[in-house]
Amino acid sequence: MTEKRAYHTIPPATMLNPTPVVLVSCAEKDHPEIRNMVTVAWAGTVNSEPPMVSISLKKERYSHGLILRSGEFVINLVDAAMCRAVDYCGVRSGRDVDKAKETGLRYEPAEKMRFAPAVAGAPARISCRVSRQIELGSHDLFLAKVEAVQVREGLMDENSAIHLERASMVAYNHGLYQQLGPVLGFFGYAVARDRVIERRMAAYR
Amino acid sequence: MTEKRAYHTIPPATMLNPTPVVLVSCAEKDHPEIRNMVTVAWAGTVNSEPPMVSISLKKERYSHGLILRSGEFVINLVDAAMCRAVDYCGVRSGRDVDKAKETGLRYEPAEKMRFAPAVAGAPARISCRVSRQIELGSHDLFLAKVEAVQVREGLMDENSAIHLERASMVAYNHGLYQQLGPVLGFFGYAVARDRVIERRMAAYR
Repeated sequence: MTEKRAYHTIPPATMLNPTPVVLVSCAEKDHPEIRNMVTVAWAGTVNSEPPMVSISLKKERYSHGLILRSGEFVINLVDAAMCRAVDYCGVRSGRDVDKAKETGLRYEPAEKMRFAPAVAGAPARISCRVSRQIELGSHDLFLAKVEAVQVREGLMDENSAIHLERASMVAYNHGLYQQLGPVLGFFGYAVARDRVIERRMAAYR
Repeated sequence: MTEKRAYHTIPPATMLNPTPVVLVSCAEKDHPEIRNMVTVAWAGTVNSEPPMVSISLKKERYSHGLILRSGEFVINLVDAAMCRAVDYCGVRSGRDVDKAKETGLRYEPAEKMRFAPAVAGAPARISCRVSRQIELGSHDLFLAKVEAVQVREGLMDENSAIHLERASMVAYNHGLYQQLGPVLGFFGYAVARDRVIERRMAAYR
């Protein structure tokens, strides 16, 4: 790791990778039948107490207005089976097509939301309420509080521990969708005892 | 995708996964020899024009004060070779240990930064200048402008296209570090012609 490596310096760009792949579902205020799902390039957790997330959306996106007016959205996590449909939802606009019809993805009622639906079959679904909108230039940053979380059956064990590694989760890596591969370690493995590492890692082999 | 799946509903939690694994390097204002590297759980891109990122940090973290006073930090992307060292940098504090000494990671001067260093060998390094700090509760959200980007030799081709898939990048998935695996598709593959898909995907097999 300490060998000398050369670098190409390039102008400022969006280079933070990998990023999560998420499908955001939302609806018009007072009109939950007017709904959409949009693949958001940039989404993340920003706070733990209370749990908060952020999503960045261009003003011209169809979902921008829906979320602004309803104050709600659902972040649907994405597995390999959904990947192609999710890519479609990122390149087509809900103004022009009914994405559920085109992709075969299906809406379901979401926990704690008045208008925004969830997407059926997603590994997990995070119901969010907007607390703040910040204009940054090309994108608006929506900060939102997590109101409920749903985890797909089969991804939670008998001790209520969640095992997202059992879903074929997908990350986005500078233009490419890549399925998550081998488990390299767990949080804190760098300071764990050998026998703890051995016991825990055995579950992922 | 349209089959009915059951869900467990759990209280609000930080469930957005996978997340990027990044190592943030920073230094004290006017004292670049007082420096640290910290593994940040939550970092992301938030704007494209101009390119902007966010990182969330607890106030009590040693790096919080360094970044607040210097107004600078560098986001170092992480590959499999760095993963264990990066985990270490997330569980130990720079108040107690010299993380470079303990991990073998090495600091180098960063592009466009007065104080903050970069980490040698990272696949890419993003020099950032803080534009805004937002208090959210447990964490402060730092919004920052990207001032320069460096990409490691071997990850850029003769046409200046960047190939992060050639690095063994790492994502964090609800407690586990997972190396990125098979390429499922490229941005827009859901609407690309078959022969375009075939040609482009051949490069990743």
